[in-house]
Amino acid sequence: MGLRATLDFLLYDWLQVEALNGRERFADHSRETFDAVLDTCERIARDKYAPFNRTVDTEEPRFDGEKVILPACTHAARLAYAESGMLSAAQDYAIGGMQLPYTLESAANSFFAAASVSIGSNMLTSGNASALMAHGSAMQKKVFALNEFNGRWAGTMCLSEPQAGSSLSDIATRATLDGEGAQTDALGPRYRLKGNKMWISAGDHELTENIVHLVLAKIPGPDGQPVPGVKGISLFIVPKQLVDSEGALTGERNDVALAGLNHKLGWRGTTNTLLNFGEGKYPVRGAAGAIGYLVGEPGRGLQCMFHMMNEARISIGMAATMLGLAGYYASLDYARNRPQGRPMGAGGKDATQPQVRIIEHADVKRMLLAQKSYGEGALALNLYCARLVDEQHTAGPQAADEARLLLEVLTPIAKSWPSEFCLEANSLAIQIHGGYGYTRDFQVEQYWRDNRLNMIHEGTHGIQAMDLLGRKVLMEKGRGLQLLVARIQASIQAAEAAPLLVVEAGALAAALRQALAATEAAWSTGQPGEALANAVPYMQALGHVVLAWMWLDVARAALRADAALPANAGRLAAARYFFRYELPKIGAWLEVVSRRDMTCALMDEAGF
Amino acid sequence: MGLRATLDFLLYDWLQVEALNGRERFADHSRETFDAVLDTCERIARDKYAPFNRTVDTEEPRFDGEKVILPACTHAARLAYAESGMLSAAQDYAIGGMQLPYTLESAANSFFAAASVSIGSNMLTSGNASALMAHGSAMQKKVFALNEFNGRWAGTMCLSEPQAGSSLSDIATRATLDGEGAQTDALGPRYRLKGNKMWISAGDHELTENIVHLVLAKIPGPDGQPVPGVKGISLFIVPKQLVDSEGALTGERNDVALAGLNHKLGWRGTTNTLLNFGEGKYPVRGAAGAIGYLVGEPGRGLQCMFHMMNEARISIGMAATMLGLAGYYASLDYARNRPQGRPMGAGGKDATQPQVRIIEHADVKRMLLAQKSYGEGALALNLYCARLVDEQHTAGPQAADEARLLLEVLTPIAKSWPSEFCLEANSLAIQIHGGYGYTRDFQVEQYWRDNRLNMIHEGTHGIQAMDLLGRKVLMEKGRGLQLLVARIQASIQAAEAAPLLVVEAGALAAALRQALAATEAAWSTGQPGEALANAVPYMQALGHVVLAWMWLDVARAALRADAALPANAGRLAAARYFFRYELPKIGAWLEVVSRRDMTCALMDEAGF
Repeated sequence: MGLRATLDFLLYDWLQVEALNGRERFADHSRETFDAVLDTCERIARDKYAPFNRTVDTEEPRFDGEKVILPACTHAARLAYAESGMLSAAQDYAIGGMQLPYTLESAANSFFAAASVSIGSNMLTSGNASALMAHGSAMQKKVFALNEFNGRWAGTMCLSEPQAGSSLSDIATRATLDGEGAQTDALGPRYRLKGNKMWISAGDHELTENIVHLVLAKIPGPDGQPVPGVKGISLFIVPKQLVDSEGALTGERNDVALAGLNHKLGWRGTTNTLLNFGEGKYPVRGAAGAIGYLVGEPGRGLQCMFHMMNEARISIGMAATMLGLAGYYASLDYARNRPQGRPMGAGGKDATQPQVRIIEHADVKRMLLAQKSYGEGALALNLYCARLVDEQHTAGPQAADEARLLLEVLTPIAKSWPSEFCLEANSLAIQIHGGYGYTRDFQVEQYWRDNRLNMIHEGTHGIQAMDLLGRKVLMEKGRGLQLLVARIQASIQAAEAAPLLVVEAGALAAALRQALAATEAAWSTGQPGEALANAVPYMQALGHVVLAWMWLDVARAALRADAALPANAGRLAAARYFFRYELPKIGAWLEVVSRRDMTCALMDEAGF
Repeated sequence: MGLRATLDFLLYDWLQVEALNGRERFADHSRETFDAVLDTCERIARDKYAPFNRTVDTEEPRFDGEKVILPACTHAARLAYAESGMLSAAQDYAIGGMQLPYTLESAANSFFAAASVSIGSNMLTSGNASALMAHGSAMQKKVFALNEFNGRWAGTMCLSEPQAGSSLSDIATRATLDGEGAQTDALGPRYRLKGNKMWISAGDHELTENIVHLVLAKIPGPDGQPVPGVKGISLFIVPKQLVDSEGALTGERNDVALAGLNHKLGWRGTTNTLLNFGEGKYPVRGAAGAIGYLVGEPGRGLQCMFHMMNEARISIGMAATMLGLAGYYASLDYARNRPQGRPMGAGGKDATQPQVRIIEHADVKRMLLAQKSYGEGALALNLYCARLVDEQHTAGPQAADEARLLLEVLTPIAKSWPSEFCLEANSLAIQIHGGYGYTRDFQVEQYWRDNRLNMIHEGTHGIQAMDLLGRKVLMEKGRGLQLLVARIQASIQAAEAAPLLVVEAGALAAALRQALAATEAAWSTGQPGEALANAVPYMQALGHVVLAWMWLDVARAALRADAALPANAGRLAAARYFFRYELPKIGAWLEVVSRRDMTCALMDEAGF
């Protein structure tokens, strides 16, 4: 099945997103308007993204000393995206948005990720603007957010620094009040920022007339020293070009300088930059430092930034998923057309038979089914999480609160699981292509390179795992985990009624018990050092349990629809594959968690 | 520990290679001569290979229409290697060789693979010449093999064709007798070849004055048709430049034309080519076809080629292993020097503490220990196999025969296991580097790209798995597998005596029983289609059992030496890691094998 058919099934048959139209916010929508958005995005992705995926890989961004040069196709793709209105798809009609459910926005954006994951960095722009809608002043919304939503300007998130990657409490960028009138600037309290920001995606380019940087920095306390830890962090708007309160460029370049482009393994369509703030390359208004406007309260910068974190992490999971599916489709196509080898007869290969297409070999089918189970399973999980975002925003208070808490638990999995297993899917896609897959004449090697980023950015695998086992399963007295368990159990009960799924339902129930017992054993001594020593294997195992749940539920929807249709038979086969080949892997992962195995944690450095 | 210390321990403390000096062939050798070879190779690899690893990645081979251009460092590296005598290290003194044990040759070559895996393609040259020593005429040995061993010429293996990759029985290259005097040519029966060969490594270059291609082709039968299947395949020497019986170039260019360079994901230091034989680009001696000389009997080409296959496959396993270890050393170095984050206290991270180096975080230690267990374990296996090659060549008849048979069973594992798990090690090395690992400023991303080839060339993972479960564990009534079991059981018994290893010994015994039961269950219906449906999971599981055996045995050697030394404590920790985190994974793999799960094999194509 192609992507569109899979999305249609998951959205309408499984998640029943049409039901959202019963809510006031989405009352004007219908399956027709949803489909129209999907059609538009599918078309733009096919015409403006897919043909240029290799171009953006080979024509890497470069800096000529003044400007960052990107290929023409990147400009065209951005323009088409901005004109589609997708930047403000989820926003209110009042500000020009479509009031589209997040689930649909997410599904529609998946076409772009599958076609060329790195051409666009639109998620950063709409995420940046959304954060301002939540935490900015009325003026900041009008001047900055709206000009991002309408496509005039682009946005970034500036968190990491060369010496502070995963460890944000150690950022060294400083913000001090900008003298007279600083507190009463129409655009917000005005500061001067000084520092270096690393790994800034889309940090400099000429795609838009301005770039709105959202920058984390520390305001020194009364003693002139920065407040240690995350409590000292505030959030600032630092535009590349200064603007007035009407949103017009004043003609003054702010002191934000490109210090270097990172040369990456993949994901090359998006610039990734080291930016210097306030180092004097573009002195502005007679004082030192880049001009920035405080967003929200001082010291609450990280909270403001984390507002957009769940959605950003789901987006990363979705990007990883779509790369996985792109490789699946490419290798499926190759396997259907490449003749090689003979069928397996009772006595082995039969050389008198004509060659078969490689899709007829059991091991090639195994590699295809693995990719399908990873990719479509991950897509189900990401759409499920997107649906929870809609619940959180538009359901009644109790359902919204449950959705919020479930999202807390599921987000680290929705981000990390596709990053790991859809990368593995891409490796299988290369393998199916044989030697051809190792050449740059086929796309699969690029998918694999592009996908390797996803275990790193927006919080590494290790960070996600600590978040999951160290915070999310414990928070609110474990209520998030309990909610998850209740949902999984409901799916199990529903599936037990289907004779075709009763074995899988039992297997999931057993796996869930195993995972819960391991969670308890991990924390049984109350020592974080012992509980978290195996946080990553724990996340891998709980991820597999969650994916098995997704597959059980998707399989049930396939049975409800029409199990005899090839597409649904394929879904049932992928579910069976996951239960038979994948779910049993949790045993090895949970063993070390349950035992609080300290082999790694206690390893003496001298022995490496 | 660095590579040299690990090699020294495995060679001398574990494998006790000094004992080989008791054999007549190696009687002139001693630990001193072995060390001298290791020293030389370590030095050349450090000076001529390592500094240029990135250069050969960025300055990819290119064809100017006449010649293939390679960077100067490639010429220098090749010259240094040829001058070291390593091309003929294992050959007789009589023809200028060193009569070095293969184990030492293999260990010494590992330095080059770790420093820059793709600069050299020397293994192809010495492998080609060795095949001629085994199957060529006296004149072919003198003219071709000796000029390869002395570094004057290079060699290739030309097996695959665009339409026949894994499926050699389908090659279409034809060879017909070259008219008058063809049967009496001093260089061997002279044929004219016509056909295309794909994926030919080092297929064209200017590194040497001549290239000796060993080409598989089919001689038409009396009816003018090629004999179907592998029985029709013969082996030919096809030199790029024609030579006389003194080995002097005649000045005639043979009709071997470069049709294209493959542009690869990695391993870019070696050209990979599509070659046209006899298509008329370089017409020679007034007739059509490239001139080639038959090696051995007609129809025995594949047997001649397979002569070198075990050693070639062990070399691939070794290359994968060294890339794994190169990434391990790089990420260990990074982890020792990069400060980030805080130590884990009883109440979680403590922000008042100074930052620690990332090697102090449990999850980073886990990723390092995983790499160590994969890389050093794979090195042990590859050296063990190399030692068996020496047994096969120089032990008494019974021991030699046992070694031959053990090698048959172990070779698919020695090739495939490092290709898969040392690739995973490279991914962990990237992960430890965080965002920096995703840039081309560090070497780890290149190791990962280079290593991806190893699951593909010299027989894909799928081919190795069919070979293992479909042929090797069955051959000679299962005697090879029985020999392996006996050796593993001997190690278990020896380890049971060591209190520190008794748990691991028991775990390996249980794992071995599980693997044997699965082998039997797979074949219990006698249907290859059922037995081999899960050949790859079987190979992964048996591979893990073999690696656990290696680690048990290496750990025992570490205890024998001095368990208190940091290096040996590290080996014990890596062994423990493998038994606790890795060996339990075999359960999931063997489950589908034992059940003869047909989920994949029976998948209907329409459902994908």
